Amino acid sequence: MKNKVLLMIADGLGDRPCEELGWKTPLEAARKENLDRIASWGSSGIMDLWQCGTPVGTDLGHMILFGYGLPDYPGRGPIEAFGEGLELQPGDIALRANFATCRDGLVADRRAGRIRQGTRELAAALDGMQVEDVQVLFKEATEHRAVMVLRGPGLSSAVTDADPKKEGLPIRPVRPRDGSPEAERTARILDRVLVRCQEILSQHPLNRKREAAGLLPANAILTRGAGQMPKLEKTVEKYHLKAACVAAESTVLGAARLAGFDIYTDPERMTGNLDTDIDRKVELAVKALADHDFVVLHMKAPDLMGHDGDPRGKVRAIERYDAMAGKVLEEIPKLTGFNLILALAADHSTPCERREHSGDPVPIVVAGKNIRKDQVTEYDEIHGAQGGLNRMTGHMFFQFLMDYLEVVPKEGN
Amino acid sequence: MKNKVLLMIADGLGDRPCEELGWKTPLEAARKENLDRIASWGSSGIMDLWQCGTPVGTDLGHMILFGYGLPDYPGRGPIEAFGEGLELQPGDIALRANFATCRDGLVADRRAGRIRQGTRELAAALDGMQVEDVQVLFKEATEHRAVMVLRGPGLSSAVTDADPKKEGLPIRPVRPRDGSPEAERTARILDRVLVRCQEILSQHPLNRKREAAGLLPANAILTRGAGQMPKLEKTVEKYHLKAACVAAESTVLGAARLAGFDIYTDPERMTGNLDTDIDRKVELAVKALADHDFVVLHMKAPDLMGHDGDPRGKVRAIERYDAMAGKVLEEIPKLTGFNLILALAADHSTPCERREHSGDPVPIVVAGKNIRKDQVTEYDEIHGAQGGLNRMTGHMFFQFLMDYLEVVPKEGN
Repeated sequence: MKNKVLLMIADGLGDRPCEELGWKTPLEAARKENLDRIASWGSSGIMDLWQCGTPVGTDLGHMILFGYGLPDYPGRGPIEAFGEGLELQPGDIALRANFATCRDGLVADRRAGRIRQGTRELAAALDGMQVEDVQVLFKEATEHRAVMVLRGPGLSSAVTDADPKKEGLPIRPVRPRDGSPEAERTARILDRVLVRCQEILSQHPLNRKREAAGLLPANAILTRGAGQMPKLEKTVEKYHLKAACVAAESTVLGAARLAGFDIYTDPERMTGNLDTDIDRKVELAVKALADHDFVVLHMKAPDLMGHDGDPRGKVRAIERYDAMAGKVLEEIPKLTGFNLILALAADHSTPCERREHSGDPVPIVVAGKNIRKDQVTEYDEIHGAQGGLNRMTGHMFFQFLMDYLEVVPKEGN
Repeated sequence: MKNKVLLMIADGLGDRPCEELGWKTPLEAARKENLDRIASWGSSGIMDLWQCGTPVGTDLGHMILFGYGLPDYPGRGPIEAFGEGLELQPGDIALRANFATCRDGLVADRRAGRIRQGTRELAAALDGMQVEDVQVLFKEATEHRAVMVLRGPGLSSAVTDADPKKEGLPIRPVRPRDGSPEAERTARILDRVLVRCQEILSQHPLNRKREAAGLLPANAILTRGAGQMPKLEKTVEKYHLKAACVAAESTVLGAARLAGFDIYTDPERMTGNLDTDIDRKVELAVKALADHDFVVLHMKAPDLMGHDGDPRGKVRAIERYDAMAGKVLEEIPKLTGFNLILALAADHSTPCERREHSGDPVPIVVAGKNIRKDQVTEYDEIHGAQGGLNRMTGHMFFQFLMDYLEVVPKEGN
């Protein structure tokens, strides 16, 4: 029978012993009978996403789980652009952008009073702009955030940020970061684009209304984090795969779109936080499994609690994740026509004590009728290290799952 | 005391849980007290031949166990040629060949009536042919099979197959597969060689006799799978090693000859199947150990049962392999003058459920008086993962054995 894989990813799951939890990790301390059932059913291990001791970001961590490696990483800008639904082409320069308020040539508010409404219209007014032979794509993101893409020949991502990073300073002129003519050309064009943005935004009726209502106008754009889209084969093409991703968070969705995965999301009900609707998530995952061989089901909350340095909060987030795993287990008997392989992973560790990502390995499980079954019966960082998968890199883990889908060509004869 | 290594290889041994065996793997389900004794005596682990999740062929799997890597793989043709005893030189083009029957310009039988007798004389009539500045080596293999080698300057393996793959079609003119002058030259010469083969074979007295007896004449040669022999240092030279291989299967013998190993085989008694004479195999292995430091003892049967999708057959094949291990254990007390290290490995997994090779790791053991002894007491895919060797690549495993033979130079000082 055909195998299909459902990969559950708990963002930032891995941790270290926490004093507040009697020197247990949040995963050891949590009630997690469903995750333990899955561990009992399959083979466990620990995974270094890229290499032992190297922390990775959420973007790179997910890219690795979706079939790529560090050399493929295009920078944050392109992944954010994919996350907002822009389909980048090789050579495109993508930048993270803010709507901001400028007054008398200085940045008065880097977030335009944390503008929440009307950014779609403002972005539409900028989208499609042409400067020299470069086309500008512009798309609003959450709140004051947006993404900008420069499309044209001979561009470079080696340019400085226009964002001065604090208020009261002028927008920084964009400078080339190397001596290449491409960087010089990109800096010149981007500066002209930003001037045009100010001209267009300051005359936009929506900003007049904001000012009339006593709100700060979103009359300027600040850019940062330029990245150039490399020539990357989509994972779905490389492996002749039908893949899907169920997630709320735009970075994860960006990495999934970049890999060519179909997106299942629901901004009304899935939040990227503890209050996310896990019924809806599992419903979408089951739906995706009907016509995809590889489905990712993501939960953000454990990572947020790690960044907050909140071990008890992380325990609660993990218990939500366990509840989501329970709903998946309930669905399995109803899934017919294929053999389900269930995998548990994380994109990196976010130890509460560090409040940042670390290079600690994350616990993994692969379970299914036809998966070798080891003696591990608990899902955590410690028991994982005793398991039948041993210690793997993220690439090994991905390749292992792909081999179960029979899409890895045999070498030799 | 000097160490020597006896490496036992069970072809295609690794597997997945099988429903027929109560969701055990064939190795878990088999009675295998001798293999378990060896595991108890040494250190266990699991091994990815090339990399996790990548299936490898028997030829590449054995090349890796004999000290090479994927970049060294020359394609099937050269390994088959070595398997038939031809000693290739760098630049040689080796092709798999069939004796066939042609009538009125069409291939009437791709296997010349499955000819079994007289192919040695027919091959001798073709061997040594010269076309332009290229010399042709030709050697019969089993039944209708043969190998052809083109030796000369400026040749390429980028040529198409002459074999039309089905009857009733003409022999396909050989075409270059790239635009290089070498490919064009090779295609032209190979076409001329194949015409000459037809001329020589159709006039051969043996074919006249076949026709008189109502048998199909072997009057043409079909070629496929061209591969070019790279510049490869022989393992025995690289490691200053005396090595030998006891096997019946020509692919394994080919990989061993390519590595410079001495060959111990007995076509009368060793079959590459379940009925192989394990007493004879162990007798040859003991003989080889007298003047070799590294001896390989191979058994093919588990792989065949995996390809047949027959879990119970694979259990029987493994029990034969266990019996062979038992005979080796009986011999150990009689081996004097050196310390024997006994290693167990496989060239790849062939899960019964897939009926093809998979990228699942294979269980390994290294045992001996001076090998660290772990707590594992059973030889299988699950217990192996708990062992003292952890998870290794094939290259790590080979290098580990070589270091026990003290042939790996120290790096640094």
